Amino acid sequence: METRTMFLGHFLVISLALNAGLLYRDYCNGKHKSQDFFFFNNGFKNASLASKRDAHVAKRTPLETKAPLKALGGVIDLDHGDPTMYERYWREMGDKTTVLIPGWKFISYFSDVRSLCWFLEPEFANAIIRLHKLVGNAVTEGRYIVVGTGSTQLFQAVLYAISPPDASEPISVVSAAPFYSSYPLITDFLKSGLYKWAGDARKFKKDKPYIELVTSPNNPDGVTREAVVNQNQGILIHDLAYYWPQYTPISSPADHDIMLFTVSKSTGHAGMRLGWALVRDQEIAKKMTEFIVLSTIGVSKESQIRAAKILQVVADSHEHRGNFKEGEAFFEHSYNLMAKRWKQLRDAVEKNDLFTLPDFSRGTCNFSQRAFASQPAFAWLKCREVEDCESFLRYHKIITRSGRHFGESANYATLHLASPSPSPSPS
Amino acid sequence: METRTMFLGHFLVISLALNAGLLYRDYCNGKHKSQDFFFFNNGFKNASLASKRDAHVAKRTPLETKAPLKALGGVIDLDHGDPTMYERYWREMGDKTTVLIPGWKFISYFSDVRSLCWFLEPEFANAIIRLHKLVGNAVTEGRYIVVGTGSTQLFQAVLYAISPPDASEPISVVSAAPFYSSYPLITDFLKSGLYKWAGDARKFKKDKPYIELVTSPNNPDGVTREAVVNQNQGILIHDLAYYWPQYTPISSPADHDIMLFTVSKSTGHAGMRLGWALVRDQEIAKKMTEFIVLSTIGVSKESQIRAAKILQVVADSHEHRGNFKEGEAFFEHSYNLMAKRWKQLRDAVEKNDLFTLPDFSRGTCNFSQRAFASQPAFAWLKCREVEDCESFLRYHKIITRSGRHFGESANYATLHLASPSPSPSPS
Repeated sequence: METRTMFLGHFLVISLALNAGLLYRDYCNGKHKSQDFFFFNNGFKNASLASKRDAHVAKRTPLETKAPLKALGGVIDLDHGDPTMYERYWREMGDKTTVLIPGWKFISYFSDVRSLCWFLEPEFANAIIRLHKLVGNAVTEGRYIVVGTGSTQLFQAVLYAISPPDASEPISVVSAAPFYSSYPLITDFLKSGLYKWAGDARKFKKDKPYIELVTSPNNPDGVTREAVVNQNQGILIHDLAYYWPQYTPISSPADHDIMLFTVSKSTGHAGMRLGWALVRDQEIAKKMTEFIVLSTIGVSKESQIRAAKILQVVADSHEHRGNFKEGEAFFEHSYNLMAKRWKQLRDAVEKNDLFTLPDFSRGTCNFSQRAFASQPAFAWLKCREVEDCESFLRYHKIITRSGRHFGESANYATLHLASPSPSPSPS
Repeated sequence: METRTMFLGHFLVISLALNAGLLYRDYCNGKHKSQDFFFFNNGFKNASLASKRDAHVAKRTPLETKAPLKALGGVIDLDHGDPTMYERYWREMGDKTTVLIPGWKFISYFSDVRSLCWFLEPEFANAIIRLHKLVGNAVTEGRYIVVGTGSTQLFQAVLYAISPPDASEPISVVSAAPFYSSYPLITDFLKSGLYKWAGDARKFKKDKPYIELVTSPNNPDGVTREAVVNQNQGILIHDLAYYWPQYTPISSPADHDIMLFTVSKSTGHAGMRLGWALVRDQEIAKKMTEFIVLSTIGVSKESQIRAAKILQVVADSHEHRGNFKEGEAFFEHSYNLMAKRWKQLRDAVEKNDLFTLPDFSRGTCNFSQRAFASQPAFAWLKCREVEDCESFLRYHKIITRSGRHFGESANYATLHLASPSPSPSPS
């Protein structure tokens, strides 16, 4: 059982922080400060969103390297999306997922020379297929698997693969706001001549080729998404990082041409730097492979072998329950964690009028057979009466990410609910 | 003891292949065919080097994904630079380098939040510093360590870090021919607005900012290199992938501002996808870190932990010889392997007038105290009377890489001598 004390304690702090009278007064007295951490200097505070957003995206600025406040004590870091919530479950699994790698393994660049993605470890491919079949969240038949150093690298690989190589101008890349805050940065940081960030998909009206990123469930607001541009010359990339049953009902297997997944959000192993793409078109899969060859000559085989083991144990925990204790089926455990955290957060927010959270309609999950409303990894918090929600919360030592980074206004902020880690269970 | 039979057998084939009378006649009768493998379609055969090289670099073409001929039997693949020569040594080391990773490790994105490169595992950093101190091949004091998914990623990180962000045109990137064949491809594949390949450093005469890649020992010709442009507005990147004592005498610790190393070429673990940079300037190190965050949000921690273990065992094999059998000191063993292979190759080449190999002067290695001539991982073979050396050898089922890819003429070809793997020793 999760030790609630630590996480509930965090929400008590939030609840105190949400005491409108005390804190709003302090804020208006200008006591807030702003600091940058493991993110790019944005340099803008209470200014016009559009112009500052463009400046933020276009300008490549030094990375601040001050230690995050979480290392300094007394601060809640809900910004970074570090999925440390999962650590306790994997500790409790003990040796089931331990991997032993001898020194003579993985000398070669090559994993399987017969495969299109020749640096994809077959064990990892098999584990992916098994897990998708079990969960029912994606079609794998007739798809090429391309492995990447996180779905971050795969996103870039897709852009490379589907951009026309000889076009007179870069192809536009769009996503409906609020969009994942890293998309503009990743798209534009090298000022590629092949592709260029073109902002909010809902405002894209040009009769030109485009690439639309459809993130579903969406980061940051957890909404189930579909394409919005719907013109003839578009190619869609479906980022399904959160389409797992701890976050959202699995209504049907996703069946798109290009689908991205990541270990970080499924099992929590963000440090592994591993993602995979399911790709229908062979030429696109080949070009994605080409990108990864040019970028990093493949992907860590150690990460792949370890992920293979972990994904198999996830599947085993559901398919071979006799080998696991009660409550250890991975997606059940993770669902329960997220459910508790969302309840605590909603309870805290309901105590005042200062904030709102999204409401999600209930749906039936074909995997768990449970009817529930989405409980995303990020909470998309809206401040009703505060112009800059992120600064307001920062003043009260709660680190979040401003809605500006997601193409929305500054009165939104995201809270990452899959961290921090719950305390270890009492032994 | 290396089983010579297999590798000597390869050189017997080469020796036969080098029988000038028989083979030159066959080649001139037009029986040769050309095929592409794990490399980009180059489409050009016996044509003007300059124009076709530019076309090759500028045009992004689909990656051929046919299995390399090595998988088809009866063919010697000396193209790919796959360092499988090292596998037998690591098998013989047995459990010394076995790494055990529990399932709860590496959940977090963060390795050390106090470090500039916050995804660098401290164990790996310590192992790097220890090894450089032992071998004496690089100064580490006062340097920031940046870890990357191979030196390939670090090369791109450096380009990003040192390119002016707001220049009116991309900064020129040059290297003296023959240069590493991947440099032009990696520099230009995204058509970045920040940097652009500008070819042979010896021909660079513009009075503008530039970046010069100095690879030493050089790939492909094994020569010890220094900068050649020597203008005021240049920044140097030193690629020291092969500056290890199995390949070349260690004359002094390299002491440059930006130095790149890779596990692939030091211990042979190419599948690990791991490299490191030693960087003097903090701002450059920060921006390199920023690149890797945007590109892949860090580097596989599994690879780092494994590399830490392996590098420590390499150092132990020299510093704690009592724990190892005779002949197991890693760099001694690897030096002997390379020495044998170069002797076999030179013996084969000397039997005819069709080919030449570079000569290297002897130098004293401060690490091994041995005087020897360089024995690079790649042999830079010149065909005296054949215009297209790579096609000629390919006809005789020896896969090499044409000199054209290195900015030289087609009568050169590279042979990778750190593969294939020697057969296991008789038990």
